[in-house]
Amino acid sequence: MQPRADLRVTMGPFEHLQALVAEDMEAVNALIRTRMASKHAPRIPEVTAHLVEAGGKRLRPLLTLAAARLCGYQGTHHQLLAATVEFIHTATLLHDDVVDESDQRRGRPAANLLWDNKSSVLVGDYLFSRSFQLMVETGNMQALEILANAAAVIAEGEVLQLSAAQDLSTTEAVYLQVVRGKTAALFAAACEVGAVIAEAPEAHAKALFAYGDALGIAFQIVDDLLDFGGASATLGKNIGDDFRERKLTLPIILAVAKADAGERAFWQRTIEKGEQAESDLAHALALMERHGTLEATRQKALYWANEARKALGPLPESELKTVLAELADFVVSRVV
Amino acid sequence: MQPRADLRVTMGPFEHLQALVAEDMEAVNALIRTRMASKHAPRIPEVTAHLVEAGGKRLRPLLTLAAARLCGYQGTHHQLLAATVEFIHTATLLHDDVVDESDQRRGRPAANLLWDNKSSVLVGDYLFSRSFQLMVETGNMQALEILANAAAVIAEGEVLQLSAAQDLSTTEAVYLQVVRGKTAALFAAACEVGAVIAEAPEAHAKALFAYGDALGIAFQIVDDLLDFGGASATLGKNIGDDFRERKLTLPIILAVAKADAGERAFWQRTIEKGEQAESDLAHALALMERHGTLEATRQKALYWANEARKALGPLPESELKTVLAELADFVVSRVV
Repeated sequence: MQPRADLRVTMGPFEHLQALVAEDMEAVNALIRTRMASKHAPRIPEVTAHLVEAGGKRLRPLLTLAAARLCGYQGTHHQLLAATVEFIHTATLLHDDVVDESDQRRGRPAANLLWDNKSSVLVGDYLFSRSFQLMVETGNMQALEILANAAAVIAEGEVLQLSAAQDLSTTEAVYLQVVRGKTAALFAAACEVGAVIAEAPEAHAKALFAYGDALGIAFQIVDDLLDFGGASATLGKNIGDDFRERKLTLPIILAVAKADAGERAFWQRTIEKGEQAESDLAHALALMERHGTLEATRQKALYWANEARKALGPLPESELKTVLAELADFVVSRVV
Repeated sequence: MQPRADLRVTMGPFEHLQALVAEDMEAVNALIRTRMASKHAPRIPEVTAHLVEAGGKRLRPLLTLAAARLCGYQGTHHQLLAATVEFIHTATLLHDDVVDESDQRRGRPAANLLWDNKSSVLVGDYLFSRSFQLMVETGNMQALEILANAAAVIAEGEVLQLSAAQDLSTTEAVYLQVVRGKTAALFAAACEVGAVIAEAPEAHAKALFAYGDALGIAFQIVDDLLDFGGASATLGKNIGDDFRERKLTLPIILAVAKADAGERAFWQRTIEKGEQAESDLAHALALMERHGTLEATRQKALYWANEARKALGPLPESELKTVLAELADFVVSRVV
């Protein structure tokens, strides 16, 4: 399944990765469609299809497929695990939208608005259960353990985020812990179970876990940075949602750490008390610019992308390994 | 662990069951306390403790313990499964309260009011993940499959209930399907995994599954009947919540089936449209009385209790078997 050389030139690492596991991914998509069905409750596929067909990037299942193949796996159980990972991700999206009271998801109105919070909670639970059914089918107890642990770390990270929200004393260390929970845990597990199902040596499973962990952290830092328009922020559409929702992401945490008394009062009013005026976002951006925290955040993302690349070291050379390494840089290239 | 004969006389079947597996249950309670903790997110044990310490009857884990011992199990993995079952139950309670917008749970303010919906959703997710971690520890793939399937059936039943709500065309068959999903599936799985962990013959596992299924149905029908004060209903405190929430439970479904044009208009206004006046509950009760649907509902509960008792047939005689049979009658004895 080597893509033609002339194609490779025009493809970014993400498309390249997709091309390398295209056949597997088709099987995963078929699994997702079949398993999100429900004989008795038609509301379930309605809600799920709304989200699934909006088409996320399916980056997490791609990682599972790539990790398994990279470790020489020849079977099909990695497809079950990839579908598991996507179901866990979709379930957390549905619940996140309830928790965040979101209006939009993947460019469409969020499910909690089209139906109601009840449907989002219960359909999320359904997908979560289905994900466990899928992984049980592999019969691989180690993979089950990894994914069950990841699910617990995700939920713990979300609750931690809830209590850290609107709290100006939130440190970079707490931020990292939240990010590890809500994003990196599933990236890391997605990679690790690929190695485990391939019965790869433990060192390779550990390497892929570390790769997924670092990639997930880079990915989330970039996401948080893009919410402010990137490192060279200018006011624009869809900018500042986290600020308005009073979420303490890295660009703000770093700005709070460098704030003088007047600036601190600004952050207390806008984040802790939630008293925000129209012009406050522009002022927040100016403060972040003044202290260089957007650029500092970008540097952190680059650091983690490099950690991801380095983590691949112990793995045997292959086209898939090269693409995974390039993917780490690609994730950060979204912000300039 | 035979209770003394003089104690048996004064004990109902529920206390008798508790006494027979008291040591196991202590271990389960310790597991529940340990595993609901969270290093990073103190909100989690706060919310969980509120619910767990309010002290439900822990009927479901008792069933798992009893089923395993009845099948001659000598190990301790049934304790992990019993804790799993209670965690799944607690997670669904937290999510149910969000879905139902409940004020009360186990005689205390519901967690969604004391904290917020967000915490209830996320802590429910956490407990759900922890339940999967617990069952993975048993290393028993068949038990995992049974509980993962039960979790999916539960979520499906809850979504089905959501779409059947406020719909007067809901039949007794749909009601039964909802009850099987939201209640009986976990009762049945709780009993079945006890047999499975004991490596009991398949016929015994099937018998215990059927027992749990029928017991769960009887239990839920009784619950729905008690919401109207029982078969000889009189207006009183805490009566009519389901009517006010426009839930189509069996007493109403049977009354709608026998309604004349005027009565049908009443149900359409109060249940479908949700236009309720203070005196409507009394009128609803009078209609159910007129058509004998409260007594008919009680008869259904008795039918399922008898099915539960019958299902135990293939199992070897033992004190535990006798207690389980008595428990079926006891569940229905709550309504007169």
